[in-house]
Amino acid sequence: MSKYDIIVLGSGPGGYVTAIRASQLGFKTAIVEKESLGGVCLNWGCIPTKALLKSAQVFEYLKHAEDYGLKVKDAEHDFDAVVKRSRGVADGMSNGVKFLMKKNKIDVIEGFGKVKPGKKVEVDGTDYSADHIIIATGARSRELPSLPQDGEKVIGYRQAMTLDKQPKKMIVVGSGAIGVEFAYFYNAMGTEVTVVEYLPNIVPVEDEDVSKQLERSFKKSGIKIMTSSEVTQVDTSGKGVKATVKTKKGEEVLEADLVLSAVGIKSNIENIGLEDVGIAVDRDKILVNDYYQSNIPGYYAIGDVTPGQALAHVASAEGILCVEKIAGHHVEALDYGNVPGCTYCSPEVASVGLTEKQAKEQGYDIKVGKFPFSASGKASAGGNKEGFVKVIFDAKYGEWLGCHMIGAGVTDMIAEAVLGRKLETTGHEVLKAVHPHPTMSEAVMEAVADAYDEVIHL
Amino acid sequence: MSKYDIIVLGSGPGGYVTAIRASQLGFKTAIVEKESLGGVCLNWGCIPTKALLKSAQVFEYLKHAEDYGLKVKDAEHDFDAVVKRSRGVADGMSNGVKFLMKKNKIDVIEGFGKVKPGKKVEVDGTDYSADHIIIATGARSRELPSLPQDGEKVIGYRQAMTLDKQPKKMIVVGSGAIGVEFAYFYNAMGTEVTVVEYLPNIVPVEDEDVSKQLERSFKKSGIKIMTSSEVTQVDTSGKGVKATVKTKKGEEVLEADLVLSAVGIKSNIENIGLEDVGIAVDRDKILVNDYYQSNIPGYYAIGDVTPGQALAHVASAEGILCVEKIAGHHVEALDYGNVPGCTYCSPEVASVGLTEKQAKEQGYDIKVGKFPFSASGKASAGGNKEGFVKVIFDAKYGEWLGCHMIGAGVTDMIAEAVLGRKLETTGHEVLKAVHPHPTMSEAVMEAVADAYDEVIHL
Repeated sequence: MSKYDIIVLGSGPGGYVTAIRASQLGFKTAIVEKESLGGVCLNWGCIPTKALLKSAQVFEYLKHAEDYGLKVKDAEHDFDAVVKRSRGVADGMSNGVKFLMKKNKIDVIEGFGKVKPGKKVEVDGTDYSADHIIIATGARSRELPSLPQDGEKVIGYRQAMTLDKQPKKMIVVGSGAIGVEFAYFYNAMGTEVTVVEYLPNIVPVEDEDVSKQLERSFKKSGIKIMTSSEVTQVDTSGKGVKATVKTKKGEEVLEADLVLSAVGIKSNIENIGLEDVGIAVDRDKILVNDYYQSNIPGYYAIGDVTPGQALAHVASAEGILCVEKIAGHHVEALDYGNVPGCTYCSPEVASVGLTEKQAKEQGYDIKVGKFPFSASGKASAGGNKEGFVKVIFDAKYGEWLGCHMIGAGVTDMIAEAVLGRKLETTGHEVLKAVHPHPTMSEAVMEAVADAYDEVIHL
Repeated sequence: MSKYDIIVLGSGPGGYVTAIRASQLGFKTAIVEKESLGGVCLNWGCIPTKALLKSAQVFEYLKHAEDYGLKVKDAEHDFDAVVKRSRGVADGMSNGVKFLMKKNKIDVIEGFGKVKPGKKVEVDGTDYSADHIIIATGARSRELPSLPQDGEKVIGYRQAMTLDKQPKKMIVVGSGAIGVEFAYFYNAMGTEVTVVEYLPNIVPVEDEDVSKQLERSFKKSGIKIMTSSEVTQVDTSGKGVKATVKTKKGEEVLEADLVLSAVGIKSNIENIGLEDVGIAVDRDKILVNDYYQSNIPGYYAIGDVTPGQALAHVASAEGILCVEKIAGHHVEALDYGNVPGCTYCSPEVASVGLTEKQAKEQGYDIKVGKFPFSASGKASAGGNKEGFVKVIFDAKYGEWLGCHMIGAGVTDMIAEAVLGRKLETTGHEVLKAVHPHPTMSEAVMEAVADAYDEVIHL
């Protein structure tokens, strides 16, 4: 029986990053993967969707070339080619992970892994043992009882990124990151898109101002938005789909070619041996302590199977901390309150920390600042005047409670707020950090200035 | 005679920002402008060039639409429309400054201002007095004796952004930000461009690795680069221009439609009364202390007329500090070592702090980390694999000495490094600040990890 220091179950951005860090720390490491290295993120999530979205953004430029003093005839997209490009990017990244496994001397065990008592992992009938077993099996698209996925007319994100044919009409149920990214993509490609959201706002985890702005932008681009609404039934018996939507005003039946169900995720914790080992689970999540140890010594869990935010960068960070702790490093527990979230539709959305509503609910006396990109020189020059940066500070001690951005390129701008918050910056320090002109990032400085009544360009 | 608390001479990003901050602080403020509100930056610099560059970038997308699964016929640019868009953006911004002046109750005095003894400013024959006079008259294109500008065949940046006709062939002398931005723009538009740089590397203030990368990228896109070369003579007697270039290998004569001289700037300190008042000047710059006070009480200077970096954001920061000090605030002197610089060609360049060479010259024992965008998932998905992030840390105390970036969108990413350095971050803190996935900003975290031998994706 092969013996390792560490075996990682699952090779998503949690698993493969964990394995690399483990190997760097000198552990003999193996990783188990049932499908493609890189997991959902690289193969069916973060990466291929960003490739699709890039095609959509470039297509928008083609359609609006005149705005930039340019001329094109017959701007068209080749849907197959767009999907093919996306698959090519995903395959390239997956091969990259393969290379990294080899370079870091990590054994890749192909097959479906299960944990077993006695610190063992069984993969398709073969047992492997390890001092430390890290479960990083991730998650999949969640199915609603009222919206069972048949993979053809009612699909999940996975089918949505590899459709043979572009749908003419599409209903997107759920308006989290996955829902709105696909809504943006298909709308940009020419599909008639309706978004149905159960809660009163789209991107409901975001600050309300951001949700409202995105709703305005989406409506302007032709996406139909139904909030406080619920798909109660789908009829797939005919040619397309008939979806019954319960709204505040009553019931409405929408017709479409297909429905994308994007109502969240479900952890992959079934049939992986948790019960045999006795690993404690609460509802959909494996229970772990600050260092990702489960209740059973030697068994750990990270990523989407644990209670933290189900985000690739959280999984990676957890995995690194987990193995650094095993290596005896002094590690500081992850601050889940300082994890950024990004949504890559146009305009992009990025945020970290508390929303205004949350800050108030938690009893903070707050200072709020907001700077619209319409007042930014760089945004004007780039044709990116939509959106804003909003910051929230604690009035008493000056803590930067939250930062919320919507606009072009903001997913690359949120890191400043994350680092600033980690370093316990005050607003004054952000203000006096000279932001280069002309950039979109000046909006962060200006929003902070606005919070302290020192804004220049408003 | 009108009496103010503060009169600002010049309404560029130094002057108008100073005036707004002065007004916020309760000072009765006037601003003197001889031409257009917003100065060179808004009207003839930062902003209109960014508009041109955006058109060029979109035009690149049109030309490479197939890479994204898209199809266009006959992608063309309308040079006049491109220039017109740029002028429209500049005019919009200038009107914005006009609005801000009004909103902040700042008197705008149109005309050419001169300082006079007794804390007076004369504008076209009329005297105004103030307790504090702030000189912010900026700079203009520097002329080399060997390369006199005639505005037609040998031009400066100002003509370069409003040419009636696109040149077929162009020589750009100087490869600082202005030179390479125009080189990129005209090359993208289809002009045959040769860049002549006196120093051994283009963008010579940048880290050598960045210069080399930009040179590779530019050459790949068809720009001819001549480094360690000098234009010794221009002959404008014929139809176009014949430029004699002295290279290491001997002399070469280049023919072109025109030459853009982009060899730096010259301060506007002539004929503004400095001698009458007795304000001390050293070479091209007005001498000031940490709070921008000149040797004569009541007279101050900020921006390009002072010795700091000649950058819009420096001028703004200086002006704000200057009036905050006048208002009696406790202000910290500007840290010129933490001023970012940005260049907006494609790939973009952004940096802050010491280059590797400078760090070594200053005797630091350093740790260097580098992460290429070719290893970034987001960069792959976006088709932006060119470039890298390079970081330099002091090995002994962990100080973040420098950060150098080249690639798509890096001008919006450098703010993280500026704020981090201001807050005296360590590399470890950057590493443990969770950067969102998938973003270009992860490259900062990975470059830092590389410096400490913890990089994941290499």
